[in-house]
Amino acid sequence: MIVLGVDPGYAIVGCGVLEYQNGRFRTLDARAITTPPRIPFEKRLEMIHRDFCALLEQFRPDQMAIEELFFSQNKTTGIYVAQARGVLLLAASQYGVEPFEYNPMQVKQAVVGYGSAEKRQVIEMTARILGLAERPKPDDVADALAIAICHAHSASVSMLRRAVLTGHNRRRDGQP
Amino acid sequence: MIVLGVDPGYAIVGCGVLEYQNGRFRTLDARAITTPPRIPFEKRLEMIHRDFCALLEQFRPDQMAIEELFFSQNKTTGIYVAQARGVLLLAASQYGVEPFEYNPMQVKQAVVGYGSAEKRQVIEMTARILGLAERPKPDDVADALAIAICHAHSASVSMLRRAVLTGHNRRRDGQP
Repeated sequence: MIVLGVDPGYAIVGCGVLEYQNGRFRTLDARAITTPPRIPFEKRLEMIHRDFCALLEQFRPDQMAIEELFFSQNKTTGIYVAQARGVLLLAASQYGVEPFEYNPMQVKQAVVGYGSAEKRQVIEMTARILGLAERPKPDDVADALAIAICHAHSASVSMLRRAVLTGHNRRRDGQP
Repeated sequence: MIVLGVDPGYAIVGCGVLEYQNGRFRTLDARAITTPPRIPFEKRLEMIHRDFCALLEQFRPDQMAIEELFFSQNKTTGIYVAQARGVLLLAASQYGVEPFEYNPMQVKQAVVGYGSAEKRQVIEMTARILGLAERPKPDDVADALAIAICHAHSASVSMLRRAVLTGHNRRRDGQP
């Protein structure tokens, strides 16, 4: 399974592409899509869409995991991030890639083991799980890889659950 | 000048296309782009993008006027509207149409004459200015037409200002 993790933004979009097979990860790509500040906002959205589509075209991920948005702190920045996130979801849909959402607590829980872990711990564990020699940079890329790990884990758990349930139903139907 | 007015949303996007020439309006189109509630959100964004691009393709507006977003009331709905708005801005950029933003007070001021006008008054005045036999429906379409009127007025005022300034500069340069 190829999973694309995304940390949404309008100045930087963190992206990480992982292959997950038999409980092992292989890092296929880790990049930041960036846009310059001094151009109209809609042009930045167009750059994000173009570069993100190129990534989807190159790796054809099976699924995408993207950070859920909350507006608690800076509302104005939040509006801009949400608009960029809409463009990322659009591109995913245009490439037939189903997006899954996770909040920071779920990502911390999946990567470090507890939901209140610090950002530094998440980045270090992400590098260790993926066997990277260095901490991924910038943080947006590290966050994207972490959310991809989170999704790969929970997706494989769901598949396991489905397999167990299917087995259970089969037995009820009198089949092996 | 052809102006496209847009009231952003994810269930309904109000759209109004006006031709404005010598202080007179002609309504070229007034439509609502709608999406069904029971499909994944990213599919709704894809529908909005596709239908909005079709509108841009059909009318090739010179400029677009879109409502500014504020998150004061329902934050969760606001996040969804912002994501849809990002897709609308993307489409505008892809068609080379420059978007202009207005807040509700500016629209009321331009259409009714004072910023604290009621919604009903804005809709009635919009219909009168455009010479429509009936009130445009739904309200999202009426709002889109109102914001297009607002932009046409302020754009023509800006052009007038520019013309005056140019004349002034010419005289300073000793030209007629």
